[in-house]
This record gives sequence, C-alpha cells and structure tokens, in this order.
Amino acid sequence: MNTFSFTLMAYDRETEARRGKIQTRRGDIQTPTFMPVGTHGTVKALIPEMLVDLGAEIILSNTYHLYLRPGHGLINSLGGLHKFMNWTRPILTDSGGFQIYSLGDLRSVKEEGVYFRSHIDGSSHFLSPEKAIEVQMALGSDIMMVLDECIPYPLERRKVEASLEKTIRWAKRCKKAHDGATGALFGIVQGGMYKDLRKKGVEDLVEVGFDGYALGGLSVGEPKELMYEVINETAPLLPSDRPRYLMGVGKPEDLVACVAMGIDMFDCVIPTRCARNGLLFTKRGKLVIKHARYRDDSRPVDETCDCYTCRHFSRAYLRHLFMAKEILAMTLNTVHNLRFYVRLMEMIREAIETGTFREFSKDFFSQYGKESMDERRQET
Amino acid sequence: MNTFSFTLMAYDRETEARRGKIQTRRGDIQTPTFMPVGTHGTVKALIPEMLVDLGAEIILSNTYHLYLRPGHGLINSLGGLHKFMNWTRPILTDSGGFQIYSLGDLRSVKEEGVYFRSHIDGSSHFLSPEKAIEVQMALGSDIMMVLDECIPYPLERRKVEASLEKTIRWAKRCKKAHDGATGALFGIVQGGMYKDLRKKGVEDLVEVGFDGYALGGLSVGEPKELMYEVINETAPLLPSDRPRYLMGVGKPEDLVACVAMGIDMFDCVIPTRCARNGLLFTKRGKLVIKHARYRDDSRPVDETCDCYTCRHFSRAYLRHLFMAKEILAMTLNTVHNLRFYVRLMEMIREAIETGTFREFSKDFFSQYGKESMDERRQET
Repeated sequence: MNTFSFTLMAYDRETEARRGKIQTRRGDIQTPTFMPVGTHGTVKALIPEMLVDLGAEIILSNTYHLYLRPGHGLINSLGGLHKFMNWTRPILTDSGGFQIYSLGDLRSVKEEGVYFRSHIDGSSHFLSPEKAIEVQMALGSDIMMVLDECIPYPLERRKVEASLEKTIRWAKRCKKAHDGATGALFGIVQGGMYKDLRKKGVEDLVEVGFDGYALGGLSVGEPKELMYEVINETAPLLPSDRPRYLMGVGKPEDLVACVAMGIDMFDCVIPTRCARNGLLFTKRGKLVIKHARYRDDSRPVDETCDCYTCRHFSRAYLRHLFMAKEILAMTLNTVHNLRFYVRLMEMIREAIETGTFREFSKDFFSQYGKESMDERRQET
Repeated sequence: MNTFSFTLMAYDRETEARRGKIQTRRGDIQTPTFMPVGTHGTVKALIPEMLVDLGAEIILSNTYHLYLRPGHGLINSLGGLHKFMNWTRPILTDSGGFQIYSLGDLRSVKEEGVYFRSHIDGSSHFLSPEKAIEVQMALGSDIMMVLDECIPYPLERRKVEASLEKTIRWAKRCKKAHDGATGALFGIVQGGMYKDLRKKGVEDLVEVGFDGYALGGLSVGEPKELMYEVINETAPLLPSDRPRYLMGVGKPEDLVACVAMGIDMFDCVIPTRCARNGLLFTKRGKLVIKHARYRDDSRPVDETCDCYTCRHFSRAYLRHLFMAKEILAMTLNTVHNLRFYVRLMEMIREAIETGTFREFSKDFFSQYGKESMDERRQET
C-alpha cells in the first residue's frame, strides 16, 4: 500500500514559496527540504547517526550505482537498503537515467530502454523502465523516480521533442510497473530549454498521474538565467497539491531562489563534494579551509552554526586535518556543510511560516558571497 | 604539579600479569591498557566520541609529526593538544626518537641531539632532549617520553653499548628539563637484544628516577622469540611499583603474551592500519573483508563483539563499502578493530582480577588464528 501523502501548511504571499509536509511510512519530511546524496549506500564519510543529528529527514540513493554494486538482488536479500545501511528514515532513489546519460559513448538509448556498459568493469547491461522500477522496489525505496531520457544542452528542438515523447512513453510504462508498490512514484518533466515542450511534458505526465513531479535535465551546462527562467515558468504549471522536486540543483543561492519559484525538494552533491575538497559553507559564502589565513584561527567555521564540527573544532584544527590529508577532515567538513544546507532549509521554512520569506531572502543574498570577497581583498 | 600515580590492585598467581590503575589529572587509566595511536592529532577516521564510546581511556600522539605540522607553538597558543583535537582524556606523547630514527639518511645523531630533515618539505631541524620535553610540554601531554636513540637490528655490541650510554645521558637531560612540569615522564630502556645491556639500561634509568618505564627498540626486525626473551628477562627488572610500557608492540597475541610477562601499557598502529586495509580482528583471527565469501554474509564481523559497527552493520555491507572505496569503510573498520583491542584488554583485566588469566590466555590462543585457517581451507 502506498502510504505517501503531501500537505501544504503555509504559502508565502509575495512569492511562490510553500511550506509543506510529506508523510511516508518511514517518517515525515518537512518541505522545502534538502536531501543529502548517498551514492553507494552511504552519505560519504558519515555514520547514519550524524545525518540524524544534523537534521536530515530523507536521503537520496543512486539506483544505477547500487544496481551495479553490490546489486539490488543482494541488498533485497539482506532486508533492503534501509537495513543494509542502517538508515530508518525515508530514501528517495533516482532511476539511473542521469547516471547512464553521463556514461556518454558507453550507452545506447532505444525505445525499449537503455543498453549500457558498467563504468566499473565494462560489463553489458540493459535498463528498461520496468527494470528501473523493479530495482527501486527491490531496494525498498520510499520515493521512486521514473526512468527518463536525459539530453545535452544545447540540442535542436526536433530532437528534444522526440526525446520528450519517449520519456513520456517510459513514464507510462513505469507507472504500470509500479502498480501495487509500497513506495511513491514521481514523474520527471523533461523538454530541454523549450518552455512549450516543458509545458507539454507537464501536461502529459499529469495525465498519467504521479505522487510528485520533478524537473529534470537542468543544470546541464545552460546559463543560470535560462535555468531559472525554465524553472520559473514550469513550476507553476505543476499540480499545486503534489511535491515539486528540482533534481540535482544546487548551490545555496539556488535553493533560496528556487523555493521562491515554488520548489519543495532539492538534492545535490555540492555540499558533500565541496566538503571533501575543503570548501566550507558559511552565511557569508564559501571558506577555503586550506588558506594560510586560517592557520591559527581559533574560531569555528561559522560562528552562527550549531553543527557538531562548529561546536567542537576550530578552523585551525580543520585546516591542519585537511593539510595532513586526514580522513577526519572529510567527516567533519561534510557534517558542517550538510548542516549548513539543512539549516538553510529550516530557516527558509520558518520564514515562510512567519510571513518573512522575502526579508529572509533579501538578507541572505545581501550577506552570501561576502566571505569569498574578503578573501580576495586580503590577497590583493 | 605532577599528579600522576600508579596503584596495583591484583596480581596473577601463575604469571607476571598485574592489574592496576594509573591516575592523572585528566582521568584514570585501567591497566593493562592499550593506547590507540593518533599520529596527527586524530586517531585516523574517528571522531573523539567514538573513541570514548569504544572505551579508550588514553591515546598516544606523535611529537615528531605535531612538531613539524602544525607546530607545537601553534597548538599551545590554541590551548593545547586536548582542546585542539577535542579529547579530554589523557594523552601520552612519544618523544619523536623512533620517527626520526625511521628517517634513515635524513637524520644525523650527535651528542647534543638529532639533526634531521622534515619528511614533508625537507626543511632542517634539530631535536635535543631538552627540546623534546619542551615540545611535549607545549602540547600539554599527560605522559611524556624521554628522547632516546633507536638502533637497528642486528647491531654489534660495541655500538649498542655506546648508543645506550648516550640514551642514558639524554634521559638525564630530559629529567632535568622536565622539572616542574605538570605531566608525568617515562624513561625508555634500550640495549638492543643484549640482555646485560638491557639490565644496565634499567639500572641507570631507575637511578635517575621516572614515573614509569618503557621498553623501546623492540619489534624492529628481530625474531619474535628473541623479542619475547628480551621482554621476559627485562620486565621483571623494572620497579614493580611503576607502570611498564612496551612501545609499538603489537598484535593481539603479543598483548596477551606480554601482559603475562608483566607489561601494563601497549600502543600500536596495527588495529587502525589493518582497519584501513580491510583486515578485521575477531576472536578467531583476522578476517579479510574483501573476500567474495562475505559478499552476502548478513552476520556482523564478530558475533561476540559489542562495537558500534557489529551492532549495526553486516559483513556484506562492510565488504561493499570497502570494494567501493568508501570513506565510511575506514571509520567502521577502525571502530571495530579498536574495540577489539580495548575489549581484549578489558577481558585480560577481568581475568587477572578473578584469578583466571591462565585459562583466559589458553582459551585465547586455542581460538585465535582459526578464522584465517578457515579461509585458507576454503580457498584450497
């Protein structure tokens, strides 16, 4: 039985921002929300308790990676992905479409599905819409995604249109394969940067009917203004009573901007990947921890942050760990960056509730980016 | 004020094993004890809470590494090593003697001290006995070690004797430099594999007078039987009312064997380094987690283990993380191996208290190593 539901509790008066709650059998998710990415059945460098502690209510996992290694059948036989990785809260699984698209020459898209070679050992595989759902069900996903075809930017209209139609046919096959499943199923709107095709994508998907709707194929190389335009014009077309999920975007400023356009859910590797590269988020922008200026800096990364790392360690210590290539640097940096993202969403939700989202947004943009500017000033 | 003290509470009747307690201003250490190694101001891959959770009462830190990076002056100005790494329990610091010995051609030993080049950037440095103590005091060490000269094996008697005499002169200078310090100071017995030189080393050091005594220069390439012989003959010569510390040894079987010879304290990188290489300790020996036989093994690493890893994760999951080169593999494996070592010491202490150390030891040796034998059997 699909026990998924979505309730909206508040709306911002001046923007499209919404404050809601997704209910699943594994717990509630307050929206707008950010989902940390756990590619291989682990959010890199963190134990599950750290994720709970920093306030993550849902994580994203990658069907493509888990299908290849260790295999969805194995995970299923061991009790599902939640048990495997000791995570009791909801998991959203993507369908593998984007990862397979990223394989380039190693994949071939046909009407029946995608033929591809493993990036690990070159072995041959076939992923159909039905198989994508089967894999996600075997993992025990709480929110599954349809298999979609991702396309490059730029791409001529004729090809985008043909691809969109295939994506819609695949979405219908996914919906059918999903019949009777426990978890929810989201559709993915494609259509490149052509707004009328995006509109058609929305209409066709809504006709099929999904528990939520995602915007896919964005942040694939297009100018940011164009991405914002597409989101701004497409999001309002989506059913207002279903969650709207912007896939793979983005930076902190994107989260604030896109919540204002009516987006409820986000995921992105930026906070975790930046953490491993020593880039730490603060309300004033990104801090490059390896800089010599932090050598003897006894302050926490962000004095307004309540994360485990900021409560216990100085910039000087984090710099030392990073310079010494210590594994602990990855863990402490990741905890901080994810808490920054999760707390940003908490503040956004509170601002919507209290009718102060516009001021919050203005404050955010007036401060964010200042840290990097300070660094540049000091170095010139 | 030096607030260090050592109390013995029980003795095994059939061996030299002792059950004691070290008291420091930062907390008590039950002996026999194992000290996890935290080279760069972190026990690799663990947050301090994990160390507390697995029962570590003291950790070891490396003077040589912290002196070079980030520098003891920096750590001191930030409030000392405990605050820097957020560890409130005792820290033993080695003097750097062994690390500098390991530099080979990059060092030159003179009467006044050691000239050496940094393994990081090739810069020139000088470490004297006085400087070694100064650095350890700046770090805020609870137990400091004298600077000693380490020697290779084998080495002709004449050279060992000359080196031992220098080590004794350095120990006297360390004792003088340590005057008025807050932490304790341990002497280090050298003398190579010559038992009469070891005896002379003990006598000369005891005449100087230290809070505890370490056996150094062992496990440097000599046959294990010879190492055991030297420990077995030297340990009883040490003052029975002071802690006896065997430096850099060893494997689980070494811990059990050397406790029986009267050793109270151990440190070694084996549990942490093996963890990062996917070698996990169990009561039946080392388990090689990457082996295909663990692919779908739903059991914990060791069914009798109470560590965080064994309570929450299967061998199949740990194998998956290791094969996918996930950072979390390092953390979970390290937690398990350190808990194995710490729990082994807990069991040893209980056995001494209850007068069952002999049986415990017999049981241990009858089981330990069986896991590896099973693996070999299955693979042939």
